[in-house]
Amino acid sequence: MSYTASVVGASGFTGGELVRLLAGHPEFEVRQATSRSKENRTVGHAHPNLRDLDLRFSSPADLESVDVLFAATPHGVSMERIDAFREAAGTVVDLSADFRLDTEAQYDKWYDGHTRPELLDEAVYALPELTREQLPGADLVASGGCNATATILGLLPLFEADVLSGDEQVVVDVKVGSSEGGAGGGEASSHPERSGVVRPYAPTGHRHEAEIEQFLGIDVSFTVHAVDMTRGASATCHVFPDGPVSKGDLWGAYRGSYEDEPFVELVAGGGGVYRYPEPKAVAGTNRAEVGFELDPENERLVVFSAIDNMMKGSAGQAVHAANVALGIEETAGLAFGGLHPVGAP
Amino acid sequence: MSYTASVVGASGFTGGELVRLLAGHPEFEVRQATSRSKENRTVGHAHPNLRDLDLRFSSPADLESVDVLFAATPHGVSMERIDAFREAAGTVVDLSADFRLDTEAQYDKWYDGHTRPELLDEAVYALPELTREQLPGADLVASGGCNATATILGLLPLFEADVLSGDEQVVVDVKVGSSEGGAGGGEASSHPERSGVVRPYAPTGHRHEAEIEQFLGIDVSFTVHAVDMTRGASATCHVFPDGPVSKGDLWGAYRGSYEDEPFVELVAGGGGVYRYPEPKAVAGTNRAEVGFELDPENERLVVFSAIDNMMKGSAGQAVHAANVALGIEETAGLAFGGLHPVGAP
Amino acid sequence: MSYTASVVGASGFTGGELVRLLAGHPEFEVRQATSRSKENRTVGHAHPNLRDLDLRFSSPADLESVDVLFAATPHGVSMERIDAFREAAGTVVDLSADFRLDTEAQYDKWYDGHTRPELLDEAVYALPELTREQLPGADLVASGGCNATATILGLLPLFEADVLSGDEQVVVDVKVGSSEGGAGGGEASSHPERSGVVRPYAPTGHRHEAEIEQFLGIDVSFTVHAVDMTRGASATCHVFPDGPVSKGDLWGAYRGSYEDEPFVELVAGGGGVYRYPEPKAVAGTNRAEVGFELDPENERLVVFSAIDNMMKGSAGQAVHAANVALGIEETAGLAFGGLHPVGAP
Amino acid sequence: MSYTASVVGASGFTGGELVRLLAGHPEFEVRQATSRSKENRTVGHAHPNLRDLDLRFSSPADLESVDVLFAATPHGVSMERIDAFREAAGTVVDLSADFRLDTEAQYDKWYDGHTRPELLDEAVYALPELTREQLPGADLVASGGCNATATILGLLPLFEADVLSGDEQVVVDVKVGSSEGGAGGGEASSHPERSGVVRPYAPTGHRHEAEIEQFLGIDVSFTVHAVDMTRGASATCHVFPDGPVSKGDLWGAYRGSYEDEPFVELVAGGGGVYRYPEPKAVAGTNRAEVGFELDPENERLVVFSAIDNMMKGSAGQAVHAANVALGIEETAGLAFGGLHPVGAP
Repeated sequence: MSYTASVVGASGFTGGELVRLLAGHPEFEVRQATSRSKENRTVGHAHPNLRDLDLRFSSPADLESVDVLFAATPHGVSMERIDAFREAAGTVVDLSADFRLDTEAQYDKWYDGHTRPELLDEAVYALPELTREQLPGADLVASGGCNATATILGLLPLFEADVLSGDEQVVVDVKVGSSEGGAGGGEASSHPERSGVVRPYAPTGHRHEAEIEQFLGIDVSFTVHAVDMTRGASATCHVFPDGPVSKGDLWGAYRGSYEDEPFVELVAGGGGVYRYPEPKAVAGTNRAEVGFELDPENERLVVFSAIDNMMKGSAGQAVHAANVALGIEETAGLAFGGLHPVGAP
Repeated sequence: MSYTASVVGASGFTGGELVRLLAGHPEFEVRQATSRSKENRTVGHAHPNLRDLDLRFSSPADLESVDVLFAATPHGVSMERIDAFREAAGTVVDLSADFRLDTEAQYDKWYDGHTRPELLDEAVYALPELTREQLPGADLVASGGCNATATILGLLPLFEADVLSGDEQVVVDVKVGSSEGGAGGGEASSHPERSGVVRPYAPTGHRHEAEIEQFLGIDVSFTVHAVDMTRGASATCHVFPDGPVSKGDLWGAYRGSYEDEPFVELVAGGGGVYRYPEPKAVAGTNRAEVGFELDPENERLVVFSAIDNMMKGSAGQAVHAANVALGIEETAGLAFGGLHPVGAP
Repeated sequence: MSYTASVVGASGFTGGELVRLLAGHPEFEVRQATSRSKENRTVGHAHPNLRDLDLRFSSPADLESVDVLFAATPHGVSMERIDAFREAAGTVVDLSADFRLDTEAQYDKWYDGHTRPELLDEAVYALPELTREQLPGADLVASGGCNATATILGLLPLFEADVLSGDEQVVVDVKVGSSEGGAGGGEASSHPERSGVVRPYAPTGHRHEAEIEQFLGIDVSFTVHAVDMTRGASATCHVFPDGPVSKGDLWGAYRGSYEDEPFVELVAGGGGVYRYPEPKAVAGTNRAEVGFELDPENERLVVFSAIDNMMKGSAGQAVHAANVALGIEETAGLAFGGLHPVGAP
Repeated sequence: MSYTASVVGASGFTGGELVRLLAGHPEFEVRQATSRSKENRTVGHAHPNLRDLDLRFSSPADLESVDVLFAATPHGVSMERIDAFREAAGTVVDLSADFRLDTEAQYDKWYDGHTRPELLDEAVYALPELTREQLPGADLVASGGCNATATILGLLPLFEADVLSGDEQVVVDVKVGSSEGGAGGGEASSHPERSGVVRPYAPTGHRHEAEIEQFLGIDVSFTVHAVDMTRGASATCHVFPDGPVSKGDLWGAYRGSYEDEPFVELVAGGGGVYRYPEPKAVAGTNRAEVGFELDPENERLVVFSAIDNMMKGSAGQAVHAANVALGIEETAGLAFGGLHPVGAP
């Protein structure tokens, strides 16, 4: 194993997934998994799938020196602790939103401002299909947000193939699982209230709009619904291009963007039960499924994109980014391809 | 009890709900519940909630004379059997799509044509909030479709208040439960495959677009997803009006349309867990919840509408329509207000 | 309406169900619904199904004088506040465990003792199928526990028909929904952790054993599992009688006990999908389904019993008991018979 | 890769899991995946997680010669086709019940007889924790049944440590997911009917009793419930030993049996959310969780055992058995350790 790594915030869902992926990764050795609330307990205490792992949570105050530090802390924590993170590790991969946007003005608008704006320039946004070229050697990596990732992967080929230029009308209607709310809970995410919902939880103004706008140069009309699954984000993009588009154009565009991508699969209207992208089909994997359908009646394209928010939407994407940043084989540690059948993912 | 009634197609989900509602209705007496496959079995054999009911399925070939016949048969059956239905009953309430549209041309476009187009003019579309005035005395009633009902109820006030005129861009992203597929099953709706899905099952070209266009005069971009619930349809309408609209305008519009409606409730952004319309909150009831949110950034309104597809989307709406057609108290037999908590509806 | 009533603890799940039932009851008028945390908010704020109700939560400190007070407070509260309750109302129906057991010794063993043991004698346990004769005129009613109710209803006919005498081996394996944990939540009942579980949450020593022992005179081996539903309790009783028992004996026993019971239905091995008792089939109702199967190979009877824990297991049973206590028609206010299909109840 | 392998019946759930495991196994190369109904279609058509696999279903009539043939066909098929299977492969691993029992008499009692009873002696039952010694070199392997596996793993240490001798009372109450019914469906397993159930689907007389009796020498009282998950089998064994047993005895027994087992984990009453075995915690893995609790009041032990029925209960166990039979590292190809959080497994 070539690199040492630590995970800060490892008792949360995303942190647990990072520990799992790194512990099974051929090139990483996990040194620390920190948790304020579960210090000294085994990692398996929080994450039953990791009971075999001989590792205990340590205090986030005592960071050992490692090659890579993954930060899975809530928004705002990384900007406060970034100096300690960088002192501990040459490469910091942050999974929060703290370093995703380019300018302080964006943080003023979408978040509560930023305390370390001078670092925004240096940070590299990690959605490898979009920013692969900038990742090698990066020492501050900001892993892309789950809903933004699903949306960008759905729309990117339309920009790369000039079907969209940025002025068009695009509505993005996202459906997400309960793990996006994180471990812990509260009344709205208690099982009796959260089961079986179709709940508009971010009707407008979701912060991931900022990432999409920054990288695609388009304002999307974005609405997020909570539905009854634990993992998964599914983005349905209703796109109104300026001119006519054929199925052939679309296949050309999507194949052009993704045919060499190891983690993107085109699923568009074949036979069988799984004819379009579905979160179930990618549960537990770092794969994104992307597909589309034409609606000539309404001069509309409908683009579907499905990911596991814990994987391609956070922990998997972060490891993928670290692989690229360090020059490791891109798919290392991310081989799990999913199950069939799957219940509610 | 003032009226006799029969249900054709009573072993299906919708037919079972009709039998339940009519059996508990103060003004109806159920005479027949027909089923080809379960003739002579008790109604409780198919519908465990009706085990107390002393009623057996009869053959659809032997229709007794009644005041009202409710037809809960698959598309195409009613147009074939309409003469027999009308011979049996002075009032026919059809729950299929067979008499919802106005012209043969629409059936040619959206369905497989029509064998009795001369009746289309006579039939009255039943979405009482929209067509209440035409229902009294109607003898052929076409109960509105579930997804169309959810959508029309969401958008209608915007037309009545002239926020929309019909030329605007409207995207409708619908999420529905598995009961829309009816009893019976098949691989795609088997529990292992259907659990936990976010599945684009009608990406484009859903037939309910025709009803929406006919009654609102607008082409909507319509996409339907299957999600993990049994009952329920939730329509999210992304609306782009031509000019600016304020929250006050919206409250005015929605209150204007619905303040006297017994089955429509405005739910828009209050506190607590249930801040917007949710299918869970109306499960088992004939109530529709309608709400909205402004997205000034994108000059968009987002309208949410939630119904129980078995009730306000089919059986409940049919009984409501029969109440109006016959001059019975509108809410008779439809008083159940739902439960809390509810699992997956 | 003949009686006034109040609900203490009305923002919880059980309290909300009580308010719903009483508001729809022909003989009750709801005066107060108390909540410490939601004082002055509308009842609909906590319970979306009650939005039409013009009622706000009041403080539990200011109890008006009413005919009946229903207490839906956590264990231990009623014994502390019982004097205030009785001062406010001539009839108190307590839904907690505080007055279910006969002796202080039982509370010492199963709970944390009792502060008002002198009242235990006076309180009447309410499981009307078992204690109907004692309820008329009772002024302190202790509504039976959910899991105890399911179990007692399953086993009672075997005692009444002398199939069991109390010395036999009986294993009761119960499966319950998440509403048994109440509103509020916590990590174990958060949606990501609680979804899809088969979790042994009370492997041994469940307190409802005490009620079962008290009323049936038998020690049962009791284990409770949490499964993925919101409402519902299903008790499977594995019974080893001393001598041979035939199907005819069983039908005789169960019909003898229940044929005149308005809320108990025998469901034992007929055809169709619902061949044995299931929580789904009674969701939202005050009905209990009870059934059985013979296992001659193992000289065993298997008895199945299913209820909605919010209804027959708490709020519905309390209203049923109040009906009997006050001489109202037993089924008044409890007519809802359930839906088909039902999702996860 | 050292061995070639084929899967007969590969379009079913179990067959799909076998293909997945073998395709990811370092020592196997998949030659054929047969399906009568999907011949010539890609394996990914049936199993969306296998879309990357360049393999099409072939006809079961044209079996190539391979080292190992895995048969995932319904009961009765293997005994009819066993000669063809053995002609094609030196090692046949059968996942049906056709070769699990020792004698024709057992098949007469529990199944519909046997057409090739002379092979029963030769077949080796594969539940490696129980029969590891007999597997090396076996050329006809009968992989243990899912519910039997869960039960045997729970009870085995009690026999090995002489806590049980075979005459005791043991009740086994099993909860299983919908994948046990296989792909295909039918009304009872359609999503609207199957969601949220606690359904007694094998109240008595389940055929897996035969396997348990054969290997443990005890008659268990066995009842199986369907609950709302897709994967998973959870066995709760209520055990009444003749004499007193302490926690220390139990830990000794279970550690003695399982401390060197790579796929069995003891989970018994620690802290956190996952204190006892749960199917969620082993979803997608070949791991079994086993735990217990004492009920001194009732002189009872309660043993919990949880597996993924698709893995440790079928495909995973079959691969594990093949590994042992062929002398491959036991855990090869079975490393996936599961996810956290998991929805409904």
